[in-house]
Amino acid sequence: MRDAYLIGAGQSDYGAFPAESYRSLFSTAFDAAVGSVPKGLEPGAIDEAFVGTLGVGGRQLGLPGPAVTEHVGLDGVPCTRVENACAASGYAVRQAVAAVRSGMADVVLAGGFEVMSDTSSDATKYWLGVSGETEWERLSGTTFSGVYAQMASAHMDRYGTTREQLSHVAVKNHANGAKNPHAQLGFECSLEDAMAAPVVADPLNLYHCCPTSDGAACTIVASEDVVDAYTDEPIRIAGVGAGSDRVGLFQREEYTTVPASERAGESAYEEAGVGPDGLDFAEVHDCFAIAELLAYEDLGFCDRGEAGEFVASGATRPDGQLPVNTSGGLKSKGHPIGATGAGQIVEAYKQLTGDAGERQLSDPRRGLTHNVGGSGGAAVVHVFERQPIEEVAR
Amino acid sequence: MRDAYLIGAGQSDYGAFPAESYRSLFSTAFDAAVGSVPKGLEPGAIDEAFVGTLGVGGRQLGLPGPAVTEHVGLDGVPCTRVENACAASGYAVRQAVAAVRSGMADVVLAGGFEVMSDTSSDATKYWLGVSGETEWERLSGTTFSGVYAQMASAHMDRYGTTREQLSHVAVKNHANGAKNPHAQLGFECSLEDAMAAPVVADPLNLYHCCPTSDGAACTIVASEDVVDAYTDEPIRIAGVGAGSDRVGLFQREEYTTVPASERAGESAYEEAGVGPDGLDFAEVHDCFAIAELLAYEDLGFCDRGEAGEFVASGATRPDGQLPVNTSGGLKSKGHPIGATGAGQIVEAYKQLTGDAGERQLSDPRRGLTHNVGGSGGAAVVHVFERQPIEEVAR
Repeated sequence: MRDAYLIGAGQSDYGAFPAESYRSLFSTAFDAAVGSVPKGLEPGAIDEAFVGTLGVGGRQLGLPGPAVTEHVGLDGVPCTRVENACAASGYAVRQAVAAVRSGMADVVLAGGFEVMSDTSSDATKYWLGVSGETEWERLSGTTFSGVYAQMASAHMDRYGTTREQLSHVAVKNHANGAKNPHAQLGFECSLEDAMAAPVVADPLNLYHCCPTSDGAACTIVASEDVVDAYTDEPIRIAGVGAGSDRVGLFQREEYTTVPASERAGESAYEEAGVGPDGLDFAEVHDCFAIAELLAYEDLGFCDRGEAGEFVASGATRPDGQLPVNTSGGLKSKGHPIGATGAGQIVEAYKQLTGDAGERQLSDPRRGLTHNVGGSGGAAVVHVFERQPIEEVAR
Repeated sequence: MRDAYLIGAGQSDYGAFPAESYRSLFSTAFDAAVGSVPKGLEPGAIDEAFVGTLGVGGRQLGLPGPAVTEHVGLDGVPCTRVENACAASGYAVRQAVAAVRSGMADVVLAGGFEVMSDTSSDATKYWLGVSGETEWERLSGTTFSGVYAQMASAHMDRYGTTREQLSHVAVKNHANGAKNPHAQLGFECSLEDAMAAPVVADPLNLYHCCPTSDGAACTIVASEDVVDAYTDEPIRIAGVGAGSDRVGLFQREEYTTVPASERAGESAYEEAGVGPDGLDFAEVHDCFAIAELLAYEDLGFCDRGEAGEFVASGATRPDGQLPVNTSGGLKSKGHPIGATGAGQIVEAYKQLTGDAGERQLSDPRRGLTHNVGGSGGAAVVHVFERQPIEEVAR
């Protein structure tokens, strides 16, 4: 099995961009990713592509894989659309890793996009809604905020997690996002603001929910056979894990864990030969504040039931023991669904290459990204680590 | 790189089944695939899954990957949706091959489904329509039959291909499909019938167009490390190729070839170390009669411009030099979009395991499948060959 390396990553701004299209945003992310490759990359070297996107409809059209690759000049290169709701491009990157490890490709583009701000489109509303369980959740009026509110209520009931602890997620992620020029909601918020926001789905308020966003993100993955042509400071994709679960929350045994995240994390840790103690930072899927707390527990950052205290203690702030969502997370950076997983990896790349600007952590060597689809029907985790070039097996 | 083997394949009936759902059809195909594994398969051995489907909307719901795997009892197994319009499950099987070759999985389910007969649904009509180019084709009223009609007209103009030759595709495929118990249009048609049918998009008439269908198909792919646990007569996935192209026909240099098919075929032949002369049969993407003729030329079954004569000569009948679409093809067997690519591989599996019933060819050793998305925006080709068990590398 050949090792896979992350040799570039970049993203568009996240926000509401009525004058942009899914193709123009993707093109911006593609150029940023190509431009980030340390020793340069001729796009013609890309021999495979995977694109994550949730929606076909509204301002997004069909055959999105070939549609975006033709737009960035990769004519003829096989491009496959990968979709697992909000984990679409996390899975796209996983497919890029498989393509490299299999020997079927040497340099692979994996990215994603979503244009969601045009919610006047019936199609857009439709494909957003159907990504939850339909028969018992959606048709009874349960939205995604409603599903995550049930998870939050269960966690509060079982472990004593508080609204204030949930609000600490927002305060931290906004503080981080305020330092990210690509963030959609790049402003700080106080704990008072985060506590006093209007309720969306009790106990979750507006500051406990991510925005809807337009945006795109791209990553470039290369094999051990060619990585030295692109960088002298390789970032190895040391571990990849994925897991599925019942689509409907009501079908699961417990509301206080996301088993797909646990499975994905365990597989990724096993492949990487490290555990949560070996991480210097993580980007986790905080579509709602409770989701970040569940991720802490499912990925072993803290014990079960202790995530509320963990975030409130400052442990996941940039100066804490395990900085989480230095990018601002979905909460502040934004959540253009198909772009989100690749966008998390953009932050990992920036941190590991020392290119994170005001958000830069001190010499991080290993980071994790965690991307969830639906309310936990799918999850994918990657572990990235800097590796001395002389240790690349060839 | 580990070799990948096809150890099982099965499908539901194709047709219009208002009492079935995408999950029930998938379940039928899954059971058939598992049941076809020569030495048996415990579903718990499946460690990865890929599902191809075009549509989310209508009677098809979100997170289709986890939704179908949970339905067949594969809880927790990573399942990724793969989509490239009508080539969705051909690409899903390609991802299964990548998963095995990469070492990330040993036994992989790859299938697809589509429930299309409910065309009363706006969503269903919508996602069917958007898989073509939108700005210049769809919005000007060009349907898929219209796009393929332009390709047919160009081929007739350039090479003298005739309506009668196009009709020979229908006659052959219906004769084959009449022997396939799973076929949607399992009846024979005469050349006179096929010539006299009402025009759909000139020069294509009703017998030059495949039906819309409900159905599902599944394949099971295993690694060289475990294949002998499942069969004593392995079928090696000897070659896989894929290619993309401009989504819009008008963006391409010529209307008389599908370059994505050429690219996919060349890659698959190269991997397999064979050319068209080494094939004993093929299943090609005959969504419209002209598509089968273009496939003959793009895959090297005959010279450019000669496909019309080639089909009329009987060369691709079951008793000809290269039998094509013994299953009945999309034309007679049916075309439930997401199922189609995997369904072609079901026929290849049946032919290579001697399980094709009345359609059985005489001792075929090597076959090809060819699956196209859109009007040629994406294509994927697989070459399968029987291999003595003692030649499996371990």
